[in-house]
Amino acid sequence: MNKPLYVGIDVGGTTVKLALVTEEGVLQEKWEIVTNREEQGKFIMRDVAKAIVLKTAELNIPMSQVVAAGVGAPGYIDVENGIIVEAVNLGWKDYSIQDELENLLNIPVVVDNDANLAAGGEKWKGAGEGAANLLAVTLGTGVGGGIIAGGEIIHGQAGLAGEIGHITSVKSGGAPCNCGKFGCLETVASATGIARLGLEAVQRNPDGYLKRVLDEFGVVSAKDIFDGAKTGDPIAIEVVKESSEHLGFALANLANALNPEIIVIGGGVSKAGPFLVDYIRESFNRFAIPKIAKETILNIATLENDAGVIGAAWLAKQKRTSV
Amino acid sequence: MNKPLYVGIDVGGTTVKLALVTEEGVLQEKWEIVTNREEQGKFIMRDVAKAIVLKTAELNIPMSQVVAAGVGAPGYIDVENGIIVEAVNLGWKDYSIQDELENLLNIPVVVDNDANLAAGGEKWKGAGEGAANLLAVTLGTGVGGGIIAGGEIIHGQAGLAGEIGHITSVKSGGAPCNCGKFGCLETVASATGIARLGLEAVQRNPDGYLKRVLDEFGVVSAKDIFDGAKTGDPIAIEVVKESSEHLGFALANLANALNPEIIVIGGGVSKAGPFLVDYIRESFNRFAIPKIAKETILNIATLENDAGVIGAAWLAKQKRTSV
Repeated sequence: MNKPLYVGIDVGGTTVKLALVTEEGVLQEKWEIVTNREEQGKFIMRDVAKAIVLKTAELNIPMSQVVAAGVGAPGYIDVENGIIVEAVNLGWKDYSIQDELENLLNIPVVVDNDANLAAGGEKWKGAGEGAANLLAVTLGTGVGGGIIAGGEIIHGQAGLAGEIGHITSVKSGGAPCNCGKFGCLETVASATGIARLGLEAVQRNPDGYLKRVLDEFGVVSAKDIFDGAKTGDPIAIEVVKESSEHLGFALANLANALNPEIIVIGGGVSKAGPFLVDYIRESFNRFAIPKIAKETILNIATLENDAGVIGAAWLAKQKRTSV
Repeated sequence: MNKPLYVGIDVGGTTVKLALVTEEGVLQEKWEIVTNREEQGKFIMRDVAKAIVLKTAELNIPMSQVVAAGVGAPGYIDVENGIIVEAVNLGWKDYSIQDELENLLNIPVVVDNDANLAAGGEKWKGAGEGAANLLAVTLGTGVGGGIIAGGEIIHGQAGLAGEIGHITSVKSGGAPCNCGKFGCLETVASATGIARLGLEAVQRNPDGYLKRVLDEFGVVSAKDIFDGAKTGDPIAIEVVKESSEHLGFALANLANALNPEIIVIGGGVSKAGPFLVDYIRESFNRFAIPKIAKETILNIATLENDAGVIGAAWLAKQKRTSV
């Protein structure tokens, strides 16, 4: 008999990423389709089901070999019932995505938040492979996160757990955040937040590398700041330090409470690599209980854009084998 | 047949609290014995076993009705194997308490950290009754805590999870903490920490109520400060505000990441009651994601000194019914 396969589905605002994953977590096939956002996204799941049927046919894989599916979506999700309470980007509201996809594919489906599943992916096959206790933080346009404790995703009372980006890092005088409060980690550690800190630094220091970038291109990006810092520009270094200090503070306080084995740092900003980790580590060690500082591993994520689909397959496998 | 009973055991440095608890969480009998710390505490478990046998005989309860026991102890515990790695106050080190008590009583035994079990007690029968997602913080001489997520105690990688007292609350210029770092929540929200803030306030304001207390009694206690604040003394109010601000900040950031249904505040300092909760709430709302601020309940613990034994019985029941 053929070995079972799991489908991992990661629904984003522009594309839906799909993958067929083995029981050992090996990515056998991955592909993308365009996210059809017409009519409040009502065609997305139908497109996904069709794409899976087409792909398995193309690869000569019988549908009976595909035993379960996991779906990651952005937004606020009722995980227990597989309902998207609200995903503004996709137009979904009180949408029973689990029921619909189960009817379309005739296999068990599980649904979770995309940031939680990225954490699951890194835990299964990425930078946190095998860790039962893991924090994942994604530094992109915003700051997302996922918490795994005792091998399970932590959801909290209303499915909001893991919102690491909205930990208050700047206690007073912080910048306003989309969430409605001030000084969130996201305002100082996302790509957008780092760029903002960079612009403020240029205003305080109207000389040097970042000022030249600003004059030349009209904007300063997070990448410009890391590039400048790596070549030794003191103002860029100051910005990286400031951002990393806040990130180390937030992560250390979470680690003080949760004692993870490993913290995985992903997202576009994490491409700055070990250079960034060193700065975060410095701050982390200052704010973490000495034993936690010594024992907690900080790693850059390794799965990049595949973390979501691998995590979705992990959850599908976990659900299937626990029933 | 008689209904099963669970033994809850809460080992402290001075006394061991014991209780017989029904399956519904009703405290049927509770009593204490002196903690015998001679010879690195090697007699404690034998004394506990004897006390249980004596008490059940006295109450005419057959030992067969007592089906499992839970033990809470201070210190660092290997929960999976029921081993006390180190409990400095008791003299225990690498001590296989679960094995010993199982041999003495011939029933299944579970062991956990006392602060975690106090959280479990409040979750089962106290201020957080029925909550699957709960934070408990104990404001005593120190600040302890326990985290319950998805109905389970969170232990973390090395059993250190729940160390809420060592979240860094004062980012720079904080007081030194026993844990080796600076500005821990414990340095500003424990009874000791609040007294220290009070003394500092007196030094800045050498007039008023707290100064008179200091002159009269030579010390200012946390209770003096709350008493003063309740009668409207501005300096005492300032101290309560400062301490509550730090506590609200730490709890809000935990709630942002963990989304608990309820936060239970216990320990001696919590006797200040709703007066204290109102100040904490003000700060909590400022630092929590608006939806979290709105939905998270803050309550004073209700079980007081019984939380530990009830939580130990809860864990014993949970383990027995899951096997």
